[in-house]
Amino acid sequence: MRRRIHPFGKLVVLIAFGVASTAAAVRAADPLPSWNDGAAKSAVVDFVRSTTDAQSPKFVPPEKRIATFDQDGTLWVEHPMYTQVVFCLDRVPAVVAKKPELREREPFKTVLSGDREAIAKLPLKDLEEILGATLSGMTVDEFQSEVRTWIKTARHHRWDCPYTDLVYQPMLEVLRFMRANGFKTYIVTGGGQDFVRVYSEQVYGIPPEQVVGTMGGTEYSYNAEGNPILTKEPKLLLNDNFAGKPEGIHLVIGRRPVAAFGNSTGDRQMLEYTTMHDGPGLGMLVFHDDAVREYAYGPAQGLPDTKVGTFTQSLYDEAAKRGWTVISMKSDWKRVFPFDK
Amino acid sequence: MRRRIHPFGKLVVLIAFGVASTAAAVRAADPLPSWNDGAAKSAVVDFVRSTTDAQSPKFVPPEKRIATFDQDGTLWVEHPMYTQVVFCLDRVPAVVAKKPELREREPFKTVLSGDREAIAKLPLKDLEEILGATLSGMTVDEFQSEVRTWIKTARHHRWDCPYTDLVYQPMLEVLRFMRANGFKTYIVTGGGQDFVRVYSEQVYGIPPEQVVGTMGGTEYSYNAEGNPILTKEPKLLLNDNFAGKPEGIHLVIGRRPVAAFGNSTGDRQMLEYTTMHDGPGLGMLVFHDDAVREYAYGPAQGLPDTKVGTFTQSLYDEAAKRGWTVISMKSDWKRVFPFDK
Repeated sequence: MRRRIHPFGKLVVLIAFGVASTAAAVRAADPLPSWNDGAAKSAVVDFVRSTTDAQSPKFVPPEKRIATFDQDGTLWVEHPMYTQVVFCLDRVPAVVAKKPELREREPFKTVLSGDREAIAKLPLKDLEEILGATLSGMTVDEFQSEVRTWIKTARHHRWDCPYTDLVYQPMLEVLRFMRANGFKTYIVTGGGQDFVRVYSEQVYGIPPEQVVGTMGGTEYSYNAEGNPILTKEPKLLLNDNFAGKPEGIHLVIGRRPVAAFGNSTGDRQMLEYTTMHDGPGLGMLVFHDDAVREYAYGPAQGLPDTKVGTFTQSLYDEAAKRGWTVISMKSDWKRVFPFDK
Repeated sequence: MRRRIHPFGKLVVLIAFGVASTAAAVRAADPLPSWNDGAAKSAVVDFVRSTTDAQSPKFVPPEKRIATFDQDGTLWVEHPMYTQVVFCLDRVPAVVAKKPELREREPFKTVLSGDREAIAKLPLKDLEEILGATLSGMTVDEFQSEVRTWIKTARHHRWDCPYTDLVYQPMLEVLRFMRANGFKTYIVTGGGQDFVRVYSEQVYGIPPEQVVGTMGGTEYSYNAEGNPILTKEPKLLLNDNFAGKPEGIHLVIGRRPVAAFGNSTGDRQMLEYTTMHDGPGLGMLVFHDDAVREYAYGPAQGLPDTKVGTFTQSLYDEAAKRGWTVISMKSDWKRVFPFDK
């Protein structure tokens, strides 16, 4: 009896072995293949390993695994202009068509002129007026449908591709790696909450309810058919930038994150809130030092300052003091975009 | 060979049969055992069955399965006073200890007198002043710890038990049934978002990030040790009641719910927003007509009107017009509380 081996016995053993070794390979697979080995990659991997290991003093129970990510300059390109600002500028003709009295008024006149240099020089106050005029006055449904159409067709000048292609492959890997380890990933952006929510699921795998951003009021009423509508009001509820980021996190999430990723002074308070308390906290900052594959800017390392994503010397100093890790786009990332070889 | 039956053969068959019949029993088990058969129970069960059946024209993909629940009077007892108002009244002595100038000022003087009748008669304006004074001025962490302590020790006068025991067993079953079918359950309450978030996970299985409520501002700063703190400000961002409910849903969730449960005029717009659009939408209203096991109030059926949870005739009429289902506590619920036999 002992010598009667089932004819498929060997095959079964081989298959079992194959399954086991595949599983081992998956376990051992590099979760961040677009990252070069180094301090930045290790900071992420070590943090996830220790906070998910029930035997570790740094263990974080699943419900408290909240990770927050700035968007512009952290998850996708923010240069030379925030994508949402381009959207707003593109919407000016439609707004003026509805309100012709704006045609000869600044800053609308400059925007309509199409003079890129003059537009780039518009002061913050003027930009805010454009944002107010182009991001309100329509229903929530109309706004979503406008953003959906625009984001499919608009193209970044340098790469001549949709903005949604200009996401950072290494950061997509961090998002996936953290989610695979039970983290709930949130976008916490200075950009408009309603804007980013339109494409966050498709682009980052982050559902709309996990996007915290600058929030405007809405007003509930009824349309001509008597059905309920929500209209976007030009009323700012929260500017989700600087101190507004932890305030927005408390408002929408109601828990303190344990990991935060940013790239500018606007993210400083979010990183402080995430790391300066008892228990584990990861702070990471993307530094744009790659003029060849992306852009190089930030006075912290003698690079030019820009209107967007300021990485100042004082932020750099605070990173060192608090143990936040600065990610060098040039040295830490093997690939920048999903389309890179 | 055919007659050589393995000695454990019968046992294996029996076990397999046992497993199969247990599975069938689980499938067939009543998901809402504390509900009597009737229109209300069927409305919930049929809605969940049809929206989760991929072959049904009413199918809703999992990511859009958002169900919202008012809290006071819908998930737990709201009579004779909202629990949060009791908390605020209980906090008045601590506030006055910090600000002695309030001791002789109304409405604080009346609250300190302990005269229940006079307190019950305080006008809304006075209550709002008490809420403002007792729900702000401390850090978010201090507030959470105060609510956590209070909710463990405070007791409802009629039943002499913690408020958290006074949840409706039939509604806990609806929450579990919907979650088991891929619905994300949210509380959408006129009460304070920060207040309800403290106990929502423990009492309803709803995590803090799935609680939408009346929202106040916070301010980011640093404590004496230089660590970040968020302080609750007496600044109202959104009154999450009436039209504020759909506005709050848009602000925090960013999606239109497909099911909504309420019990008063404060929930009217949430039910409209949930049901008056193309596609499936469930609207349900709890009617308090059970003076023996709970309370009976609501002018819609000639019962006394109260300060809380007003179920007016016009809401009753709208329910009929929109196809919302009115749940009779007396007839539709076998049990009211988890402690009922």
